[in-house]
Amino acid sequence: MTKSRPDAPFSLAADDSFGKSRLRGLRLRLYIIIFESDTPAGKAFDVGVIALILASVAAVMAESVQPINLRYGEQLRAAEWVFTVLFTMEYLLRLYCVGYKMRYALSFFGVVDLLAVLPGYVALLFPGARYLTVVRLLRVLRVFRVLKLAVYMSETTELSRALIASRRKIEVFTVCVLTLVVILGSMMYLIEGEENGFTSIPRSIYWAIVTLTTVGYGDISPRTNLGQFLAAAIMLLGYSILAVPTGIVTAEMSRPHPDKPVPTPAGPPEPPPNYCKHCGGKL
Amino acid sequence: MTKSRPDAPFSLAADDSFGKSRLRGLRLRLYIIIFESDTPAGKAFDVGVIALILASVAAVMAESVQPINLRYGEQLRAAEWVFTVLFTMEYLLRLYCVGYKMRYALSFFGVVDLLAVLPGYVALLFPGARYLTVVRLLRVLRVFRVLKLAVYMSETTELSRALIASRRKIEVFTVCVLTLVVILGSMMYLIEGEENGFTSIPRSIYWAIVTLTTVGYGDISPRTNLGQFLAAAIMLLGYSILAVPTGIVTAEMSRPHPDKPVPTPAGPPEPPPNYCKHCGGKL
Amino acid sequence: MTKSRPDAPFSLAADDSFGKSRLRGLRLRLYIIIFESDTPAGKAFDVGVIALILASVAAVMAESVQPINLRYGEQLRAAEWVFTVLFTMEYLLRLYCVGYKMRYALSFFGVVDLLAVLPGYVALLFPGARYLTVVRLLRVLRVFRVLKLAVYMSETTELSRALIASRRKIEVFTVCVLTLVVILGSMMYLIEGEENGFTSIPRSIYWAIVTLTTVGYGDISPRTNLGQFLAAAIMLLGYSILAVPTGIVTAEMSRPHPDKPVPTPAGPPEPPPNYCKHCGGKL
Amino acid sequence: MTKSRPDAPFSLAADDSFGKSRLRGLRLRLYIIIFESDTPAGKAFDVGVIALILASVAAVMAESVQPINLRYGEQLRAAEWVFTVLFTMEYLLRLYCVGYKMRYALSFFGVVDLLAVLPGYVALLFPGARYLTVVRLLRVLRVFRVLKLAVYMSETTELSRALIASRRKIEVFTVCVLTLVVILGSMMYLIEGEENGFTSIPRSIYWAIVTLTTVGYGDISPRTNLGQFLAAAIMLLGYSILAVPTGIVTAEMSRPHPDKPVPTPAGPPEPPPNYCKHCGGKL
Repeated sequence: MTKSRPDAPFSLAADDSFGKSRLRGLRLRLYIIIFESDTPAGKAFDVGVIALILASVAAVMAESVQPINLRYGEQLRAAEWVFTVLFTMEYLLRLYCVGYKMRYALSFFGVVDLLAVLPGYVALLFPGARYLTVVRLLRVLRVFRVLKLAVYMSETTELSRALIASRRKIEVFTVCVLTLVVILGSMMYLIEGEENGFTSIPRSIYWAIVTLTTVGYGDISPRTNLGQFLAAAIMLLGYSILAVPTGIVTAEMSRPHPDKPVPTPAGPPEPPPNYCKHCGGKL
Repeated sequence: MTKSRPDAPFSLAADDSFGKSRLRGLRLRLYIIIFESDTPAGKAFDVGVIALILASVAAVMAESVQPINLRYGEQLRAAEWVFTVLFTMEYLLRLYCVGYKMRYALSFFGVVDLLAVLPGYVALLFPGARYLTVVRLLRVLRVFRVLKLAVYMSETTELSRALIASRRKIEVFTVCVLTLVVILGSMMYLIEGEENGFTSIPRSIYWAIVTLTTVGYGDISPRTNLGQFLAAAIMLLGYSILAVPTGIVTAEMSRPHPDKPVPTPAGPPEPPPNYCKHCGGKL
Repeated sequence: MTKSRPDAPFSLAADDSFGKSRLRGLRLRLYIIIFESDTPAGKAFDVGVIALILASVAAVMAESVQPINLRYGEQLRAAEWVFTVLFTMEYLLRLYCVGYKMRYALSFFGVVDLLAVLPGYVALLFPGARYLTVVRLLRVLRVFRVLKLAVYMSETTELSRALIASRRKIEVFTVCVLTLVVILGSMMYLIEGEENGFTSIPRSIYWAIVTLTTVGYGDISPRTNLGQFLAAAIMLLGYSILAVPTGIVTAEMSRPHPDKPVPTPAGPPEPPPNYCKHCGGKL
Repeated sequence: MTKSRPDAPFSLAADDSFGKSRLRGLRLRLYIIIFESDTPAGKAFDVGVIALILASVAAVMAESVQPINLRYGEQLRAAEWVFTVLFTMEYLLRLYCVGYKMRYALSFFGVVDLLAVLPGYVALLFPGARYLTVVRLLRVLRVFRVLKLAVYMSETTELSRALIASRRKIEVFTVCVLTLVVILGSMMYLIEGEENGFTSIPRSIYWAIVTLTTVGYGDISPRTNLGQFLAAAIMLLGYSILAVPTGIVTAEMSRPHPDKPVPTPAGPPEPPPNYCKHCGGKL
């Protein structure tokens, strides 16, 4: 169960998928440091990168807070440039030392590594884009590899397995919910009208989603009697509907053998064939 | 498991329920194009209809947005007329080529096909009614047939089976919740009174449903101490009550054999009868 | 499974618990009409009572709506008096014809029958009390008996069985949640203070319950940074906590045999003893 | 199943972990009264302590209510001092009579006992701190021991077992949710901006948590079209995500044998070896 499975989204390139076997000398040494964490240097590198990521996300978050920005704005922007340059160098190093460059660049974490540096440069044109550097946080998911916690990996794969196995049911469910929400939203637009905040069908659909998911902001809420009646019906419906995805995922998780997706009780067990020892005949 | 079941709401007329065997010539050819999707023409027809539906729903939604309506209102209303005429022609064609007309007209999708065109004409008298044409969206559920995704069909029937099997439990549950909500709403009307927004018992019941389902808009909320105490009790109650429909559906979904509604462990399995080979007697 | 069980809250006195065997003549005839529904008269009586209950609840609800009250207030109040008198007569008749009077008076529906008439008289002193007559609605739960729907009865007993079986777990859970909510409420009172709406610890506890149950009115919400941080932590906690009662009830409902509360897989099944027919010896 | 398990958080020191065997004379007698509840004196002591705790928490709560504080403020503060002194004496007595002092002081209830008196003294410097004395409420959890309800203990250990067993899955889930929430919050900060209430990234993250957990206060809510679209997507996502922890806990609770974490169906049962009576050979 602790074996990493190739179909899991978090399976990391411990195998040769990035072409480690083709590497020699400096590139191989770099590869072992950057992509693996079995050596002390590799572990230190990973821990350092994670510390940098958390620090850079904290800096971006701090910069968005007005009072902090007014006092430390310049230092924070400077720090962000340092982080962006460091992560760029790391990305280039990864690209340099990897065997199959395209395969890395298009892998899940390859794309995330790129997304972690791009917003820093886009911010030269559109200043707001630098807040998107929080995407770097996705890289922290690598923490599971650094910690070498095989148990966590197996938990993760078990979670993803349950989600993947119930994918189709959730798709059918989502199509039904979206259809329902468009129809209910249009009815409420008709019933409540613009004077009660249902200014358009898209906005009424937004309200229907807010209601059906039981979020219920209250920024838009029905005021007419008929509208409140329909809303109450929608809520009771949402109540039962809420049970469906929970049921799907739970039923999937309760299945005992992750490797064989057969239904639980495998039918009457076949007793082993009995042979009568003294006559040799099958009983 | 991929066999379509007649009791499922999405079972489509691939069989002879619409009287295909009675058709000849043009009607048969039309039937194969319109109702089936095994031929290239049938598939193209279905894909075209779905594209038309999505376009017409998008047009209705766009029209309800004030700024868009001011600029493109006339074009959108013209487009809606085109859509209504097209869907009317399609409905008449379906009626024409089907064998048993009433059986089609009263089937789930037969009613939906009619509802998809009616609001367009009703809108001549009541302009608002045209927003109800979004009901057309229900026809998109046919997409599952077009895509010929037997897997999705089986997922859908499994979902509906679980919901149908737990129907009675959900009915009992709903009657209990409705009774509870009327009593709680009346008590809150007494406690809070009109000055705190609980202007009538029906509105207090609306509040009780908003609270029990954990939607919680906040448009009406208790202000007195006793009211807040009772509301808190209702919420904790709702918390436990929320568990009931989830439990019902989950328990139903965890049942392994969809075709035999027997409880999970079928008791001690019956070993196959053993015969003693050398004496021929049953052991 | 359709056998009514004495421990279920909805088991109705079809047996001799109300002393039917001691009745003779008029009292017996009345008993059969009023308490049973096997005869046409008994069924008609039950259906009539349910119609009266629904009508009286509708009248009370209508009276609370201001515009209706202004127009039809007098008629509605007159109708309520008629209902109260009718239900009083029914209650006295029930008391008269029942064998063991105290046993009926103290049974679940005996108390509900009394509660259904009391508020009408209390309203002479406290006018608001008449709204409490909606308690009559509980009597509609008898509808399950009238409809003779054994299936519903079994569903109901299954639901109550699951709730009763998980009673202790839910009690432990409730004590833990209440403790948590008091401590969190007090902390938020300290952090946010009266200027942000957390005017006292009881009100802060009310806020904590509103938040933990994900109702989230928004009438009170944290404004300080520390308060919002703690609130976010409470929500994520509530998210996981929400899973507990659902898990309890679902696990209980998934148990296959309602009558034997043994855990699902009963261990290796015992094969029936095999005897060798031709030698008579046990194999 | 009613056996108390040492790994459960509520397992109480009925064993020798606090060094009872080393005690003699007065200390032993005090130990039996204070730490155990098998003797009448021990039971009376426990019940008295619980009454004191509930009274002191009620006093703190009452003091925070403005009108009550104005009238009875002095008496309440005096009562709180009495409670604090009493609990201090109790804590010192516990420390005195226990065999291994450090082991008690660092145990779960040892820390809670200390936390129950500390705020009373800290309040001399920071008056607000006295509200933290509600932490005393945690001591009421000892009530389970006093009541000697082995059943409740087993329910409690079963609940904690399920939570502990799903600990790692919940950790993985929490890390994923936190990452998601930071990224979504930053995107909403960019889209909505400060003029719509999303004044900083931390506040936007707070909003994302409020939304994803379906609490939905409505103190901050998206106003732009793009923001409402993204918010609706987050809600539908949260809907499915909500299913995950429920699934985890439910699947854990449905496991039949708490002591053996083997998956439910134990595979084909092994039939007992059959011996042919008339030939003595193993079949």
